[in-house]
Amino acid sequence: MRPTDDSIRQSGHPASARDKLLFTPGPLTTSSTVKRAMLHDAGSRDPGFIQLVRDIRGQLLHLGGASPEAGYEAVLMQGSGTFGVESVISSVLPRDGKLLAIVNGAYGERIVAMAARHGIPARVVRQAEDQLPSVAAIEAALQDDVQITHVAVVHCETTTGILNPIAAIGQVVKRHHREFIVDAMSSFGAIPLNLAEAHIDYLISSANKCIEGVPGFAFVLARREALLAIEGRARTLSLDLLAQWKGLELDGQFRFTPPTHALLAFAQALKELAEEGGVAGRGARYRANHAALLQGMNALGFRPYLAAAVQSFIITTFHYPPNPKFVFDQFYQRLFLKDFVIYPGKLTRLDCFRIGNIGRLNLEDIHALLTAIAAVLEDMGITVPLDP
Amino acid sequence: MRPTDDSIRQSGHPASARDKLLFTPGPLTTSSTVKRAMLHDAGSRDPGFIQLVRDIRGQLLHLGGASPEAGYEAVLMQGSGTFGVESVISSVLPRDGKLLAIVNGAYGERIVAMAARHGIPARVVRQAEDQLPSVAAIEAALQDDVQITHVAVVHCETTTGILNPIAAIGQVVKRHHREFIVDAMSSFGAIPLNLAEAHIDYLISSANKCIEGVPGFAFVLARREALLAIEGRARTLSLDLLAQWKGLELDGQFRFTPPTHALLAFAQALKELAEEGGVAGRGARYRANHAALLQGMNALGFRPYLAAAVQSFIITTFHYPPNPKFVFDQFYQRLFLKDFVIYPGKLTRLDCFRIGNIGRLNLEDIHALLTAIAAVLEDMGITVPLDP
Repeated sequence: MRPTDDSIRQSGHPASARDKLLFTPGPLTTSSTVKRAMLHDAGSRDPGFIQLVRDIRGQLLHLGGASPEAGYEAVLMQGSGTFGVESVISSVLPRDGKLLAIVNGAYGERIVAMAARHGIPARVVRQAEDQLPSVAAIEAALQDDVQITHVAVVHCETTTGILNPIAAIGQVVKRHHREFIVDAMSSFGAIPLNLAEAHIDYLISSANKCIEGVPGFAFVLARREALLAIEGRARTLSLDLLAQWKGLELDGQFRFTPPTHALLAFAQALKELAEEGGVAGRGARYRANHAALLQGMNALGFRPYLAAAVQSFIITTFHYPPNPKFVFDQFYQRLFLKDFVIYPGKLTRLDCFRIGNIGRLNLEDIHALLTAIAAVLEDMGITVPLDP
Repeated sequence: MRPTDDSIRQSGHPASARDKLLFTPGPLTTSSTVKRAMLHDAGSRDPGFIQLVRDIRGQLLHLGGASPEAGYEAVLMQGSGTFGVESVISSVLPRDGKLLAIVNGAYGERIVAMAARHGIPARVVRQAEDQLPSVAAIEAALQDDVQITHVAVVHCETTTGILNPIAAIGQVVKRHHREFIVDAMSSFGAIPLNLAEAHIDYLISSANKCIEGVPGFAFVLARREALLAIEGRARTLSLDLLAQWKGLELDGQFRFTPPTHALLAFAQALKELAEEGGVAGRGARYRANHAALLQGMNALGFRPYLAAAVQSFIITTFHYPPNPKFVFDQFYQRLFLKDFVIYPGKLTRLDCFRIGNIGRLNLEDIHALLTAIAAVLEDMGITVPLDP
C-alpha cells in the first residue's frame, strides 16, 4: 500500500534527477506531502500552530495507547533523538539515583555514556549484540542492588536490528518497583506498544523514524506521576524535561524556538500514518518490506547476522559475502550511483552492512534495490547466488 | 531591495490565504526559495550533503571575518539557539572556572541560569534593561576576581533590542586574559562583526535569525586554540561542543542525526545572503526596515522604549500608548487577523510590546504593517496620532 504519490521523487531537482532512496536507520525518505507541509512559516505563538503542537502531543500519546486522562503526558524536545534520550536520563534520575542500563548494542552503550557524563552511577547488564538481554540477569541485578532507581533499555537496537523484549523487562522492573525508560527510537509508530501494559514510565522516540516526519525534534511520553516527581533533578537547562513540559502546558509554547517547519511536517506525517491504518498499517508495510528484502537477499546468497527469532522488521544486518572481490566501499558507491543508499555496519568485530526498510519505502522500492544489488555484484565480478 | 519573489506568500494554503508576516524575534518569515530547498531528503552520509555542511561551516566563518587558516572553527549544533549557548557554557568552562555574566536582559539572565544549572560559579554585572553594560564595572570585576576565566555577553538583547558594545568589552576581556563568549543570536549576519577584532573566543548564533534559514540548529564559531583546550570539560553528551566539532572534522558527519532539511534550507539562505550583498547588504535592508518602522510608529505617536543611541536595527520595544482603550491582546489579535504578527514585551516592570524587522521583510511589508496598525487603532476607537 502506497499512501501518497511521491511525484517529487521523479520531479527533477537542480542537483539530481531524483532523491536517492534511503535504506538507512535515518534520516529517512519521507513523502512529498510531508515535505510540502514545510512550505510555510508558522509563528510559534500563532494559535493555529499552538493547536497543531497540542494535537501532535495528543496523537503521540494515542499511538502509545495512552492519554492525559490515563495519566500520561507527551513532551517534545528540540534536537535529534539522542537529545531526547539525554533529556530523560539527565532529568529523571535523582541525585542519589542509580541507573541499570541493559545493553546489547551501540545505543545502549550511548545511554551508559550519558549516565557517566552526568555522574550518574550506572550498573550495566551487557549481552552480546546478537543476543536478547537476559531477563533473569536483570531481575538478579534489581534484587541485588537496591540503589538502582531506574532501568533503561533500547527497544529496537538499530546497531543490529535486534528487537528487545521490553514487555517482559517491564514486568520485572514493575515487580521490583523501579522506573522504566525505553528508547523506542526506531520502533515507535510501527511496532505496537502500549505504555501502561509494558509498564513504561518514559518512552523516547524521534520525528524522523517510523512516523516519517523530518528530523528536528525528539519526543518523550511519560507517566505523569513519575514526571511530576522529577522537580529539581534536571542537570541542564535546554534538556530539562519537566520545564519543557510545563512550558508546553502553560501556554502551549516551547520554552525556546521550536523547529516550526519540522513540526508542520510532523503533523502531516501523523495524518498520513492514520491514513495508512495507524501503527498496524505502518507495521504491515514495513513487515512486508522486510520480508521481501530478506527473501531477496537470501536468494542472492547474503546471510543475515541475526537469528530470525530476534530480528526486527526495521533494519537488517548482513554479513559481507566471503568473496575477496566484495569490497564494501565499492558496493556502497555503486549502489549510491544507482540512487540507493544503504548503511555501513556498526559492529566492532564483524564485517557487515545494514539495510533499513522504514521511511516512505514500499515493495516496489525493495525490489528495485534488490535488482540494483544483483547488478552491482555482477559489475564487481561477483557471481550470484553468492557462494555459501 | 527584495532578493526573491515570494510567490508562496500569495499562493494559497489549505489553512490560510497566505502566511502571516512575522515581525518577531523568531521564528521569522523566510523566502519561498529557502523553504523550497527542503523538498528533498538528503542522506546524512551522502558526499553531497557532507560537502554542503562543510560549505556552510566555511561560509559562517567567513561572515565573521574568520577562517580555519586564521585559527577559527565552526560547529553546528542541533536544537534552538539556546542549545548552542548551553553547548558553549557547559563545554568550555573548566571545573575550577568561573563565569562573569554581563546582563541587561532576559537572554543574559538565561546564561546565568545555565551556569547555575551546571554548578558553574558565576559573577554577574547587571545593568538596567535600557542601559548599556558598564565597561568600567566589567574591568573592575576582572581585576577584583582572579577566579573568573570566561566572560559572556549578549550582543543584541532581544528583550529590548539594545545593542551591547561587544568590541569595547572584548578589549577589556582580552587585556585581562580571559576568554570571551558572545551570544550573537539575533545580530550575526546583519551587524558587521569580526571575531578576531572583537577578541571573541566563542560566538553563538542560530539558523533562523539574520541568515534567514529555518529553525532547527544553532552554530558556534570558536577560536581553535581555545576549542582544543576544552577536552574533558563537557558536562553533557548531546551538547558536547568539542566532540561535535571532532565528529564534523573526522568524516564531515554529525555525531547524531542532523536536521537535514533545515541544513538544505540554510545553504540556500546563505546563497541568498551573498546575493543580497552579504552582511552589509542584509544590514542595509534591516536598517531601512527599522528606520521606516520607527518613523511610522513615531508618526502614529508610539514611543520607543530605548534611546536611539543604544537601539539596534533588529527589534524595537514600544511603550503601550497611555490610552485606556488600548488593550494589547486586542491590538495583537486584530493585527493577527490582518496577517501581521507582532510580539509581546518581555520587560517585567513595564507595559510594552515589540516589533522585529528581520527575516524576509522589506519596506513594503513595514509600510503595510504601519497601515494596519493605524487601521486597528481606529477600529479600537483610538485616535491617531496618539496623545503624548
